[in-house]
Amino acid sequence: MSSVLVVGSVALDSVKTTTEQHDNLLGGSASYASVAASFWTPVNMVGIVGEDFPQPFLDLFAKKKIDTMGLQRVPGKTFAWSGEYEQDMNNRRTLSVELNVFEYFQPILPEAYRQSEFVLLANIAPKLQSHVLDQMSRPKFVIADTMDLWINIAREDLCELLKRVDMLILNDSEAKQLTGCTHLISAGAALQKMGPKYVAIKKGEHGCLLFGDKEFFAMPAYPIENLKDPTGAGDCFAGGTIGFLAAGGEVSFKELKRAIVCGSIVASINVESFSLKRLEELDQREINLRYKLMKEFTRFE
Amino acid sequence: MSSVLVVGSVALDSVKTTTEQHDNLLGGSASYASVAASFWTPVNMVGIVGEDFPQPFLDLFAKKKIDTMGLQRVPGKTFAWSGEYEQDMNNRRTLSVELNVFEYFQPILPEAYRQSEFVLLANIAPKLQSHVLDQMSRPKFVIADTMDLWINIAREDLCELLKRVDMLILNDSEAKQLTGCTHLISAGAALQKMGPKYVAIKKGEHGCLLFGDKEFFAMPAYPIENLKDPTGAGDCFAGGTIGFLAAGGEVSFKELKRAIVCGSIVASINVESFSLKRLEELDQREINLRYKLMKEFTRFE
Repeated sequence: MSSVLVVGSVALDSVKTTTEQHDNLLGGSASYASVAASFWTPVNMVGIVGEDFPQPFLDLFAKKKIDTMGLQRVPGKTFAWSGEYEQDMNNRRTLSVELNVFEYFQPILPEAYRQSEFVLLANIAPKLQSHVLDQMSRPKFVIADTMDLWINIAREDLCELLKRVDMLILNDSEAKQLTGCTHLISAGAALQKMGPKYVAIKKGEHGCLLFGDKEFFAMPAYPIENLKDPTGAGDCFAGGTIGFLAAGGEVSFKELKRAIVCGSIVASINVESFSLKRLEELDQREINLRYKLMKEFTRFE
Repeated sequence: MSSVLVVGSVALDSVKTTTEQHDNLLGGSASYASVAASFWTPVNMVGIVGEDFPQPFLDLFAKKKIDTMGLQRVPGKTFAWSGEYEQDMNNRRTLSVELNVFEYFQPILPEAYRQSEFVLLANIAPKLQSHVLDQMSRPKFVIADTMDLWINIAREDLCELLKRVDMLILNDSEAKQLTGCTHLISAGAALQKMGPKYVAIKKGEHGCLLFGDKEFFAMPAYPIENLKDPTGAGDCFAGGTIGFLAAGGEVSFKELKRAIVCGSIVASINVESFSLKRLEELDQREINLRYKLMKEFTRFE
């Protein structure tokens, strides 16, 4: 079983829905992805927080066997994000972003992390994602996540990064935005031509499309009725995916299919509460049950 | 093998996309659904056309072993529809509708059709759909299709109809509109409470959700790159579904899953050409190949 390196943001979130509001929540791409990955394998986390970062969140990382040697603690305030969801939770509005210590973040890998075989470059600026790879010997499998912001303001950096990663994860609107394709099947093929051998296009409640070397997998989302807070769903998806892969140590399309089902399931559980509350107490057996049900929900003779 | 009764509209369509325009095409819910169903079982079709209805279209029905004894031919012009698709073909604008002979259509079942066991009430006014059932002894399985127009202007008629059908097919936005739910999993359950034991929510390129008695099936769309004209995809889906079911004669969730995969596949082939051109010459082996591939695209261990 290989450990996983996760690099990304760590944040304090305020999230408002039509029925609830919660402040000072644990957020950020590295937080969600690391906790999600921890259900399958030990995690080494690289990120940055300020002096105000609450001890209980560090305790949660410790409880989940997440190594935080690479989590820089510096003077100043932690990155803070605040957002509001509409009744239809596919629609989100960012209310405020305070970069704080995150503004000058440079990911620095502790010596012990540089040999990591499985790497998740969670959602941060593509230049920083590339900077992580610069510090590593060739890892076995690198997944990059991204977002619309970087496609808008750092497209060139992102294109450079894509040549160096094995798999890209992004959502449907981002896939269309980055490729100019209006159709996702064409977009998947176009993204593969930009570098990554594998591409996963996330479609929220509609599941995910996985493109491989002449191989294709279409997965629905696990059906949930109790959607509380979709924040971090994509990060959990990416974390679960890399965690499952690292635990097995083998990379093939067959394993990748299983990996994204695991990523999707841990995301489906996480959105049933605010922040990481559901994953804090989650039992692996609940993941296994949903995995079994996902098979039932998708099989036909 | 039971034959299928299909009742719906028969139209002459003009379709414009960003690259092509075609006029005087065979269209209408009954045309698409009947041709789609004909790949599995003989079809009896009920509809109405005017004096201008082209003989080649009648020849196509004959070639597909579609019985047109119930296709009324009356003085006047055939129902004509014209529409335009944007670059993103999920967006369609109706340019004109001329009801013509369709305005006074009353579906009348020939005596021989009244014992039909498998019935598709393709998309027409819910009052007309109910009028079809009034003329029948209790069929074994009735599927109703509908559209946003009837939810807007004939909701009460539609609710009456829903108490009398075994399965409802509608798309995602219609499901939300009819139930007031913002989430499809909740919408499916709410629709079942309105009458039908089974509900299929179509999501276009994202596939379909099937709700049964405590059973659930999520199916992606067959991946295509060559989308030419989405007109009639939903009608083909419904036609393939009822055709497959009637051919087997058995109704169970297991058979329904297979049926909607067949419906989805025949729709995926049809949208690769304007009107019904692809289905005109289609070989059953191509359907079987896509069915096999759909299994591959959705299976994981």
